[in-house]
Amino acid sequence: MIQNDFVIHDVKFLKPDGEVDTANIFVTGDKISAITHDDEVTAEKIIDGRNKFATPGFVNAHTHASMTLLRSYSDDKALMDWLQKDIWPIEDKMTRHDIYIGAKLAAVEMIRSGTTAFADMYGPCMDEVAKVVDESGLRGILSQGLIGFADGDKKLASNIDLYKNFHGAADGRITIMFGPHAIYTCPPDYLRKVATEAGKLGAEIHMHMNETQTEIDDCVKNYGKRPFEVVAETGLFDTRTLAAHCVWLSDDEIKIIRDKKIRVAHNPGSNMKLASGICPVTKLLREGVTVALGTDGAASNNNLDMLEEIRLAALLAKVDTLDPLTVPASQALQMATEFGAAAVGLKNVGRLEVGYQADIVLWNMRGVDWQPNYNPASLLVYSANSAAADTVIVDGKILMQNRELKTLDEEKIISEFTACANRLTGK
Amino acid sequence: MIQNDFVIHDVKFLKPDGEVDTANIFVTGDKISAITHDDEVTAEKIIDGRNKFATPGFVNAHTHASMTLLRSYSDDKALMDWLQKDIWPIEDKMTRHDIYIGAKLAAVEMIRSGTTAFADMYGPCMDEVAKVVDESGLRGILSQGLIGFADGDKKLASNIDLYKNFHGAADGRITIMFGPHAIYTCPPDYLRKVATEAGKLGAEIHMHMNETQTEIDDCVKNYGKRPFEVVAETGLFDTRTLAAHCVWLSDDEIKIIRDKKIRVAHNPGSNMKLASGICPVTKLLREGVTVALGTDGAASNNNLDMLEEIRLAALLAKVDTLDPLTVPASQALQMATEFGAAAVGLKNVGRLEVGYQADIVLWNMRGVDWQPNYNPASLLVYSANSAAADTVIVDGKILMQNRELKTLDEEKIISEFTACANRLTGK
Repeated sequence: MIQNDFVIHDVKFLKPDGEVDTANIFVTGDKISAITHDDEVTAEKIIDGRNKFATPGFVNAHTHASMTLLRSYSDDKALMDWLQKDIWPIEDKMTRHDIYIGAKLAAVEMIRSGTTAFADMYGPCMDEVAKVVDESGLRGILSQGLIGFADGDKKLASNIDLYKNFHGAADGRITIMFGPHAIYTCPPDYLRKVATEAGKLGAEIHMHMNETQTEIDDCVKNYGKRPFEVVAETGLFDTRTLAAHCVWLSDDEIKIIRDKKIRVAHNPGSNMKLASGICPVTKLLREGVTVALGTDGAASNNNLDMLEEIRLAALLAKVDTLDPLTVPASQALQMATEFGAAAVGLKNVGRLEVGYQADIVLWNMRGVDWQPNYNPASLLVYSANSAAADTVIVDGKILMQNRELKTLDEEKIISEFTACANRLTGK
Repeated sequence: MIQNDFVIHDVKFLKPDGEVDTANIFVTGDKISAITHDDEVTAEKIIDGRNKFATPGFVNAHTHASMTLLRSYSDDKALMDWLQKDIWPIEDKMTRHDIYIGAKLAAVEMIRSGTTAFADMYGPCMDEVAKVVDESGLRGILSQGLIGFADGDKKLASNIDLYKNFHGAADGRITIMFGPHAIYTCPPDYLRKVATEAGKLGAEIHMHMNETQTEIDDCVKNYGKRPFEVVAETGLFDTRTLAAHCVWLSDDEIKIIRDKKIRVAHNPGSNMKLASGICPVTKLLREGVTVALGTDGAASNNNLDMLEEIRLAALLAKVDTLDPLTVPASQALQMATEFGAAAVGLKNVGRLEVGYQADIVLWNMRGVDWQPNYNPASLLVYSANSAAADTVIVDGKILMQNRELKTLDEEKIISEFTACANRLTGK
């Protein structure tokens, strides 16, 4: 008999090669300890896997969790109107507790939609988000958004503190990156400083890159070069970098991404809603780039539902290239799982395989949108919605079962969250 | 006291102008009989509207309901491989009962996701779909798919019979259109015949138009003109026409659409998945064209979830035009409701307004993805998913309440459906 904490019995599951198999998945401690094909299993705790589909938990490779507070506060606006008139003034008013409760509602939303890890850039007060990671049981890859103007050095010092205090915390579920915000908010000299400090600690980088055409035009005007070229010269990319958006890329920039092993977080929902443009995913994947998926913040998406990003990634690449064969279902899922984990620097995460961390989602396949049930991976990507997320497991710990949350008090969180949002917006 | 069958009390609802108001909605018989702002209402049957958002039921302006049987049977294939090797051979084997049960599962799926009317083109045996409309309580706008080759005349005769037997049936919930399939399956002479027969009966037309670039190229090669030009000459457009897809349009074709008052069913999900291209929605709307939304069949979508099409329509138009202001949330909802009803020829449907048919959906706003709750219309379009559809009403009759189906036996339908699908595919 296999020593284990629990077994998911007789479950269809997504194999690392994208195929679907039926097996028993044993979890011991925080790891997948065995995958067997026996008809019967003996174990103390058995989770019935029939009519369920097991996938690795989704990795949200780019978000700003606390921005749930601004969900649908301002939609259908021009980008700069939206940011300058509506979003920034509210963000300026956010307190420490707002950051906490915004991220906590985000945690509920992520667990409910099958996300087990998220790369968050926000700040200040990222220690509040760390607290949410600790309490929720999720995995968090946190960075402080660094703006190089005014108190840029103070912010950098704060990101260093964040690293020292929280990298590896919550039983290793928290890791810390450095978050230089973007080329238009971080001059090259500042990026050099960030590169130096991150390099000393061995920390990775999370940065917005090439999101809009305006950003490129301004960069060329200011520095005579495109963003990836300017940033490459600062040495920042010699520290492992996660680049969010990457919508407008020259061929030379794609070469930099490939050669510097920069990982890309593609945010199709946000890029579509803000009319930023389309990330050339097919081209990047062909160059062997690790392309992950992110939701971006809830003010520009407007949710944290990775299943929507998976579907959008698959659909948008097809219509963009007019090639129905690009980004098939299995690859879209890989972007949200294995590639996601690699993109945010997680080891042994993102595959249902023995020895990997037990970050598992069980999808309920009883709904009509799962019928007929020939190809669960394809049904998940092209037909189901995230309300089918039934059970969510991180590091072998059950965060949700039967859609019941185990670590968070949803009603209490919504009530506190509503009070904060109303105070911030005066609504 | 207002005489009524029931009242939805204290509910936020979508007004025809796209704004949101809070009121009581009275339903008498099959109509909305009053909308009041009194705090208290006296009525025999009261539906609690608090924490609910009422919208008109969605109109799916282009689908092939029975194709649920082929959902995810063949995904991520090139279009012609998909159609010729996988889809058509299975469709050839479909029996009368298959058509029925496929449409019946579709009815469950549509009710569960807030759709109250659907324009269906399939066949033969559209009388089986009519039976499903009758039994489910939905509204169906049915047409037989007419292929002009071989037994084209027999099919046309069958569409005439369908009209004579079912137009206005099920208390008026069934209307019949003529369904010439497409320019590549219906030669101009055949379209002339269809136009004549439809004209005699005063029936409207539902036809696939300009879905792929190949279709345009072939048409130009065969007839020296583009599809809308060829079809216009047959007189078909003098009968009111619903044109599905309209992806590749010349400016002259847009003029024909505008001048002939052709209504367009935009199918963003299907067009993206099959890599067909992007319908120029912004341009069409600017010309005053009635643009509705459709899911297409579940073999190419892969679901019948109109909320996804609404979101895709809003997102895709923005990234296509690089204009974040185009197709705002209220307009996307209008495309799925008022414009949908107009597109499929329904009178007094698609608005929450006194005198209109009581086709109403109540969305549950308790989920985290509805928080904070500033703008329900925006939250519905950009954040929620269709699992929030709580109550669905058609012609004043409740088809679902509290997510419990009132007219259909879901478990029995899934079981019969699975047997049919397995027999057809040999799986």
